[in-house]
Amino acid sequence: MKHDHVDSDFGPVPGVDLGQIFASRRLLFDAGVHRQLQAGISGRKEHGAQSIVVSGGYEDDEDYGNVIIYTGQGGRDAATGQQVKDQELTRGNAALVTSLSTGWPVRVVRSLTEHRRKAVDGYRYDGLFRVEDYWSELGRSGFLVWRYRLAQLEEGEKPDRAPHRPAGRTTLTRVEVKVQRIVRSTSVADFVKRVHDFTCQVCGLRLPTPTGAYAEAAHIQGLGKPHNGPDIPANVLCLCPNHHTLFDFGMLSIDDDLSVIDLATGRSLGRLTLHDAHEIDPKYLAYHRAHHSRGWVHAPVPAPGPGSTR
Amino acid sequence: MKHDHVDSDFGPVPGVDLGQIFASRRLLFDAGVHRQLQAGISGRKEHGAQSIVVSGGYEDDEDYGNVIIYTGQGGRDAATGQQVKDQELTRGNAALVTSLSTGWPVRVVRSLTEHRRKAVDGYRYDGLFRVEDYWSELGRSGFLVWRYRLAQLEEGEKPDRAPHRPAGRTTLTRVEVKVQRIVRSTSVADFVKRVHDFTCQVCGLRLPTPTGAYAEAAHIQGLGKPHNGPDIPANVLCLCPNHHTLFDFGMLSIDDDLSVIDLATGRSLGRLTLHDAHEIDPKYLAYHRAHHSRGWVHAPVPAPGPGSTR
Repeated sequence: MKHDHVDSDFGPVPGVDLGQIFASRRLLFDAGVHRQLQAGISGRKEHGAQSIVVSGGYEDDEDYGNVIIYTGQGGRDAATGQQVKDQELTRGNAALVTSLSTGWPVRVVRSLTEHRRKAVDGYRYDGLFRVEDYWSELGRSGFLVWRYRLAQLEEGEKPDRAPHRPAGRTTLTRVEVKVQRIVRSTSVADFVKRVHDFTCQVCGLRLPTPTGAYAEAAHIQGLGKPHNGPDIPANVLCLCPNHHTLFDFGMLSIDDDLSVIDLATGRSLGRLTLHDAHEIDPKYLAYHRAHHSRGWVHAPVPAPGPGSTR
Repeated sequence: MKHDHVDSDFGPVPGVDLGQIFASRRLLFDAGVHRQLQAGISGRKEHGAQSIVVSGGYEDDEDYGNVIIYTGQGGRDAATGQQVKDQELTRGNAALVTSLSTGWPVRVVRSLTEHRRKAVDGYRYDGLFRVEDYWSELGRSGFLVWRYRLAQLEEGEKPDRAPHRPAGRTTLTRVEVKVQRIVRSTSVADFVKRVHDFTCQVCGLRLPTPTGAYAEAAHIQGLGKPHNGPDIPANVLCLCPNHHTLFDFGMLSIDDDLSVIDLATGRSLGRLTLHDAHEIDPKYLAYHRAHHSRGWVHAPVPAPGPGSTR
């Protein structure tokens, strides 16, 4: 168990300030900010992504400042930069999914040249982001791309010191990063949970607490950019935390007849439990199937081997 | 299903500004900020707490500005204000647990008089907080009190408009409040999850994702104020999201011999699955039992009836 390896290279880099500009990818590499000279994503499936460069090179990226819709790597023609085949959920693309799972922060570097935001060439370190969501879609070229929503960490969420530490040191670095499993609480979510009496529509579990029961509301087509799903009961499921996790990771596929497939095993989990007061619109299920259920189907996980994920 | 009732009275009050001062509890009541004239907590077990008044009246409150350690209500002598018996997990105390579960924001009002912070009398509306944690402990008087950690919502988390709406209106108000199930990702958490290969130590479940498996690290004695548990592997469990939820709500009690009791049913769930590289220190389990497992044992939930929770 190489514990020391786990958190090395994640988080802020000592001596590198927010907004610091590097003239070249080589300088960015040497400073330890982004340990890849060409690839936009630095990281491995095993531990997640340490950093990305938002270069504007992918036709589908969207940069909203503190929220970035980032397109995965691969499938581009080296000469033209155009998307010529489907992207796979491997290498850096898989690393960003692992980052969603672990919650470790990802350093974001913006290429100033390609962003044409300033009359400066170079690369600017823009701080720590978390991966909030990932999904697949057909990019503008008609090929499958993997996409990620990254949100900048709030001031209070920043690790108060770098998780870097010399190899072999055994004291544990305390870094608290508030992360992942962000559950949106809305009046609609509350309504759906109450209709189902806090019982999971997939497995029938109802988690007791000292003052009632606990369930989570899962939006089928996500709220907010870029999914822009509506916050209405027809777009929400009442799930236990485990099935919410599996649903968000695209491991559950729900057909129009509301039967649930466990994509890890290919087995049916039966139909969703329904309630007259809560109708589910199949178009949101179709959206979820199209965007969230393809990781498993298209890219079954290969057995990890040394170096195999880089 | 009274949907309209669910979100009424939660969140910001239209026309009331952050920092606005009210000369009396009556004015606070009339403005709709805190709908109780005497009680410090306004709310019901069924839907959660809409507001609290931090008065400094309880001997165990701690106010850190954007984090408040708040003591529940009840058990005080009316004449002296001293704690004379155990508090129960009912009424307002139960409402604050429901707020943890639902994630709805709680309005916080500070009594300026008792805080002696300013040379002004009155009550100041200090914005929206979320309930992040609750537990029981022996207060300074030796009686059981219920305590809550409330944290102020970040700027970006504030509902962008009030969830209030006139009764009978059927359009759904879109309020996104990022809440609850905050999972702290640390190098230690990562270590423990890897040791157990992302397998729940209670039930053996291992949730698959397209790039690996997903588990959560549960700190046994919580990090941060006021528990100040250490971030070391001996204080961490690897759990599936469902058992993490139950553990945090005090529904699982783990004995020194590492056998797990489901407090809702009283049944044993067997022993925790262990691994040589990960020893658990019983003193943290004892802390968790003392502070988090008493809600069920001491205050089994009565069947809710009209008015019974107010």
